[in-house]
Amino acid sequence: MTHHRLIFIGFGNVGQALARLLLRKRPELESQFDLTFSVTGITTGRHGRAINPEGLDLEKALEIMQSGGNLDAISVSPAEDGVKFIQACPGDVLFENSPVNYQTGEPAISHLRAALESGKHALTANKGPVVHAYRELSELAARANRSFFFESTVMDGAPIFSLFRSALPAARLLSFRGILNSTTNLILTRMEQGESFAQAVAYAQQVGVAETDPSGDVDGWDAAIKVAALVTVLMGIPLKPDQVERTGIREITPEKIQQAVQAGQRWKLVCMAQREGDGVMARVAPERVPITSPLYAVQNTSSIVEFHTDVLGPLSIVEENPGPETTAYGLLADFLNAVRPG
Amino acid sequence: MTHHRLIFIGFGNVGQALARLLLRKRPELESQFDLTFSVTGITTGRHGRAINPEGLDLEKALEIMQSGGNLDAISVSPAEDGVKFIQACPGDVLFENSPVNYQTGEPAISHLRAALESGKHALTANKGPVVHAYRELSELAARANRSFFFESTVMDGAPIFSLFRSALPAARLLSFRGILNSTTNLILTRMEQGESFAQAVAYAQQVGVAETDPSGDVDGWDAAIKVAALVTVLMGIPLKPDQVERTGIREITPEKIQQAVQAGQRWKLVCMAQREGDGVMARVAPERVPITSPLYAVQNTSSIVEFHTDVLGPLSIVEENPGPETTAYGLLADFLNAVRPG
Repeated sequence: MTHHRLIFIGFGNVGQALARLLLRKRPELESQFDLTFSVTGITTGRHGRAINPEGLDLEKALEIMQSGGNLDAISVSPAEDGVKFIQACPGDVLFENSPVNYQTGEPAISHLRAALESGKHALTANKGPVVHAYRELSELAARANRSFFFESTVMDGAPIFSLFRSALPAARLLSFRGILNSTTNLILTRMEQGESFAQAVAYAQQVGVAETDPSGDVDGWDAAIKVAALVTVLMGIPLKPDQVERTGIREITPEKIQQAVQAGQRWKLVCMAQREGDGVMARVAPERVPITSPLYAVQNTSSIVEFHTDVLGPLSIVEENPGPETTAYGLLADFLNAVRPG
Repeated sequence: MTHHRLIFIGFGNVGQALARLLLRKRPELESQFDLTFSVTGITTGRHGRAINPEGLDLEKALEIMQSGGNLDAISVSPAEDGVKFIQACPGDVLFENSPVNYQTGEPAISHLRAALESGKHALTANKGPVVHAYRELSELAARANRSFFFESTVMDGAPIFSLFRSALPAARLLSFRGILNSTTNLILTRMEQGESFAQAVAYAQQVGVAETDPSGDVDGWDAAIKVAALVTVLMGIPLKPDQVERTGIREITPEKIQQAVQAGQRWKLVCMAQREGDGVMARVAPERVPITSPLYAVQNTSSIVEFHTDVLGPLSIVEENPGPETTAYGLLADFLNAVRPG
């Protein structure tokens, strides 16, 4: 039986869902994975931070967050923030869930670097570090004999990176194509049902899928950063989001939507990348897809990616009904893959 | 750099495709996996058998098969057959590709047992041993510190078993649903295009998908054995093919096909299993699926499985254009997963 001390940087929807999942899965982790865990540190943006080398009361921490309280109340000592917290807090595994920064990847990169430099596994649902520091953090992890994993950054908890890492050895990824942004797919689905763009955006915001400023989604930035992450990691070609040809969905009018429907087609914000010589061509753009396409049936917040390799016919992964719980599962899977032997 | 001696039991379409894939991937296996290989033994049903502890000339062996010759010509010594061959041939990895036996799983089970008992990894594309001897062979493999892998038995080389083994830790499979038999899916696709059942069967035979006696496919046995394999391995509930409720596609007339088309639906031979208490309900039967179903767009020889777990929304894997080459890749993946460290 091994014991693992966990640190949470960020304790919003995803962090809390992960805490609940860990509590629910605790018996299975003990019986099937021979492991126990404690949470030694949690930091939040607006609800303080707590540290306890002997293990925090995780259920109590969840209650405090639910009631809008402050985690300082359960901390055994005052704690600094960010990198200093990570350096000071005893721990074996860092879950990094600070808000994403598309331009620089900070402060997540610094958090993950500090974790690896102090001998902790560095796990994140944050796309920024993958596109802005994949090579540095991977090399640092290899030297420290620790893992830098980020399964939840693309398609939530659906296994994409671990698929290639462990289930598809010696497969060379030639190209991929898919729907990777839930918000725009939901908006296009709602517009097909008769809503205007503004109504569909409002609906997506109301159900918690779109942010107050939806431009990161509707202008294709979120999709572009996911394309860049897949290209960087799975094709081994470093690619920044601004190197992805990018067109959002603002030009897709209700008229265009209906024209597609009448032709038996659907507008989708299609992500794709394809090797070209030693480089890659990567693009995010709306496309009309026919009913024969595997992308056609992927509606609402569901997502799909179709991989073309040198060893299999087209292989697609489809994920339905994502949410904070599925993102949390991706982090749990990263944790178990980081610490289990063999 | 590690060296692995490979033995092929069965050298038909799949075995030969694996040999070609190994030759093609040899440089990557050396550079990325730090491994080299030699083939020390090959047995066939009608083209003799060859043994050479120093390594057979694999390209020569392929030429002999292509020209209809006999492998005895390149054997350095006379060799016995079956289990005795496996015991006598020096080797580290056995690829078992003898013809499938739905009722008993033999002689494949004996071949795999002999491999594990003599310290070899036991890898197979044969479904029989999975449904008839999964527990015995898994336990034997664990005791011998060797692997018993069979990725290619369901959906060819698409990663299904390795997905749960490595990419979805701590996920409990609650139910699944899919299209797992290529032949019937091709027949139903052709019938939708206007062919009779007999014409569609003849076409499937002509392109090498259906066997001379197509009953194993059209009566649902192949699908049932795959359901049994998935339930046995992924749900941990031993299930035999005859415990799967089974209805084939013989009752699906061109009239029924057209009625479905007019309703915007399609007939599919749907495989499913669902936990019920400590047990499982498993079924193979034709169903009309609507256009909103992920199964609808899966045509011709493509296949799909949709997994329902306790940690993610529905997760589907879709494989298009399977063939001997993709089955061969599943065996290569098993080999690499068996021998690579960590």
